[in-house]
Amino acid sequence: MKPYAEMTKEELASLKEQLMIQYKEYQERGLNLNMSRGKPCIEQLDLSMGMMDALTSGADMTCEDGTDCRNYGVLDGIREAKELIGDMMENPVDNIIIYGNSSLNVMYDTISRSMTHGVMGNTPWCKLDKVKFLCPVPGYDRHFAITEYFGIEMINVPMTPTGPDMDMVEELVSSDEAIKGIWCVPKYSNPQGISYSDETVRRFARLKPAAKDFRIYWDNAYGVHHLYDHDQDHLIEILAECKRAGNPDLVYKFASTSKISFPGSGIAAMAASQNNLEEIKKQLQIQTIGHDKVNQLRHVRFFKDIHGLVEHMRKHADILRPKFETVLQVLDNELGGLGIGEWTKPKGGYFISFDSMDGCAKQIVAACKKAGVVMTGAGATYPYGKDPHDSNIRIAPTYPSLEDLDTAMHIFTLCVKIASINKLLEEA
Amino acid sequence: MKPYAEMTKEELASLKEQLMIQYKEYQERGLNLNMSRGKPCIEQLDLSMGMMDALTSGADMTCEDGTDCRNYGVLDGIREAKELIGDMMENPVDNIIIYGNSSLNVMYDTISRSMTHGVMGNTPWCKLDKVKFLCPVPGYDRHFAITEYFGIEMINVPMTPTGPDMDMVEELVSSDEAIKGIWCVPKYSNPQGISYSDETVRRFARLKPAAKDFRIYWDNAYGVHHLYDHDQDHLIEILAECKRAGNPDLVYKFASTSKISFPGSGIAAMAASQNNLEEIKKQLQIQTIGHDKVNQLRHVRFFKDIHGLVEHMRKHADILRPKFETVLQVLDNELGGLGIGEWTKPKGGYFISFDSMDGCAKQIVAACKKAGVVMTGAGATYPYGKDPHDSNIRIAPTYPSLEDLDTAMHIFTLCVKIASINKLLEEA
Repeated sequence: MKPYAEMTKEELASLKEQLMIQYKEYQERGLNLNMSRGKPCIEQLDLSMGMMDALTSGADMTCEDGTDCRNYGVLDGIREAKELIGDMMENPVDNIIIYGNSSLNVMYDTISRSMTHGVMGNTPWCKLDKVKFLCPVPGYDRHFAITEYFGIEMINVPMTPTGPDMDMVEELVSSDEAIKGIWCVPKYSNPQGISYSDETVRRFARLKPAAKDFRIYWDNAYGVHHLYDHDQDHLIEILAECKRAGNPDLVYKFASTSKISFPGSGIAAMAASQNNLEEIKKQLQIQTIGHDKVNQLRHVRFFKDIHGLVEHMRKHADILRPKFETVLQVLDNELGGLGIGEWTKPKGGYFISFDSMDGCAKQIVAACKKAGVVMTGAGATYPYGKDPHDSNIRIAPTYPSLEDLDTAMHIFTLCVKIASINKLLEEA
Repeated sequence: MKPYAEMTKEELASLKEQLMIQYKEYQERGLNLNMSRGKPCIEQLDLSMGMMDALTSGADMTCEDGTDCRNYGVLDGIREAKELIGDMMENPVDNIIIYGNSSLNVMYDTISRSMTHGVMGNTPWCKLDKVKFLCPVPGYDRHFAITEYFGIEMINVPMTPTGPDMDMVEELVSSDEAIKGIWCVPKYSNPQGISYSDETVRRFARLKPAAKDFRIYWDNAYGVHHLYDHDQDHLIEILAECKRAGNPDLVYKFASTSKISFPGSGIAAMAASQNNLEEIKKQLQIQTIGHDKVNQLRHVRFFKDIHGLVEHMRKHADILRPKFETVLQVLDNELGGLGIGEWTKPKGGYFISFDSMDGCAKQIVAACKKAGVVMTGAGATYPYGKDPHDSNIRIAPTYPSLEDLDTAMHIFTLCVKIASINKLLEEA
């Protein structure tokens, strides 16, 4: 098949007719498939069911330091959970706070605290006329939703294959005191699966922000979520880089076990400098007496240590690898060489990012929906839901079965083809 | 023994000498006893260990409506948890949101949201010059800490045997638009163990606040925490009362299972009108994808229903009753008739409240500490830690063993006697 752009109007029209027949056939099947959210599948959830036996009624519920995990106390997490998550995040226990079940919640609370109380003695953001955040795009819709909710102005920064456009980040951050933060998913990014290069991380660590209360929001959600054993991205550790660069307080790191144990029933954590943590704990002790230590202990007893956790992630990879490969294969087979779309080939994480021809994404997602395939809303990967090119679509291959995924991707690629022809015919 | 006030200076001085000998003997024992916080004891924690077996690796993890509790989703709690907690809070499931592990956290977040986003379209509190809260005193230090943290001015309202002084509450709330809320522990109050009378609750429901965004913060922390089977306080249900009074949105109710299952590993909840809940959920969906549903399911499978929960509370009562009785007995035996202190005799909850002669509380708590008995800090039961009479001391009898409690209370009453004599001698 030749590139669509090289086809005549007549060829395109005739092709569209054939494709519409296929589309109608799919529609008649009344399918209900979902590739919209980064949800683990049932087989993945089953991997952690052993955790339910990690603490039984006869279990010793005391920590190594003698703390009874069942009672009040321990604001920032039990020591052994800090060790496990610290090893995962590549940070010492002294730089870790263990939270509740959701790192998103920790990020929200961090922004909220900055609004009401400011960051390290600086003016609370709610007292400022303008607060801005940098948003690498495409990015994670729930990040953008938080900053939007707080009325923070979001500025798009284009992603490159090595991370955000650092020239732009450096220029903006150093010149505008209203810019207080940047959302980053530095490894296997949402949605592109891009891992920031060593240079990108070092340039982040060496930023000279105009705002003293500027922080990098480093959401390392997929730090250990590789698809392959021997072909993994490596991300250098930013907290150490920041320290080395004389910017120890520049970054808040976030992580959780949501896609390791159970989404919604895992444990979340933050890593940051001791200056940052001290300030955060002053607030945290007002907000709560402590997080769920029993669940922290349950995680430690189940995974034992970082090696156990890494082994566990292999099992996730075994389930997810064929799913990613199915998506990529259908994309290659159906769209390869047609010049109507580009997509990423991540080595980990939860998503594949697809870019259609400009102005086609909404149409594609709408057409998919009418044929029974729910995709993440077009535009969702951009602040305010506005993709200036209307081209980016996030594909979440993890939840559906291989068979459903294959069907869903055939429908998706069919919709891409039809929308692209419509666009080319309009322009002709 | 006759009342201290009727003793001569010489009698008091001689008595003090004897008491100081006893005090020094206690000091030499190098004790380390703690009656400072409302922590369940180990025997109470053991009562819920069966919950660890409620979900095993072979368990069915689906809710009644088919939701897999292990995956993302369900912002406001699983249906069966809403039923259990709804029955406990005496509210329909439609008025319930199930949260994470801490109702204190929910209260903090509620204040925080009011600061940044306001309440139902009213001006965010952070944009106002002045925000005030009413604080029935003595009350719960962690409540006061939240409002203090947000720079909210706290106004003391005296407690009476039927609840807060409602004449004062009505007058203040109806005349001052800056008053946005009141902290209430309406049943077995912290620290006095007072339950609000029917009239008090009805007067709350009929408040006509000057501020449209005034809310009653109804922290029913001890709703099912009775000490006796047949001698229980009854609190009328305020949400229904508010509805009846034409004030459906006036109240936020809070509760948790922290002192039912495990402190820090229980489930928390809010009950409110649907208008309130709708607004709250708009924010909640930005803050999190959902709370820990596995732990919700674990609680439901263990307690089964409200009857199971009530039966469980009987076991707590069996452990706590002798502790409360020990405290009261030592108080009666040692201080009865001396005219140097008054105390409450609660039928439930976690505390006994003691009022010394004016100006003695700090001295008593300090003297206890030097003899190895840690009490809640004097003043802690008042906003800003300032007890205007320096007389209130909160006694938390739940954690220590009966033997330790007996010793600790003898030291406490000894310190009360000595401080009272000091005071009387000063005045003489």
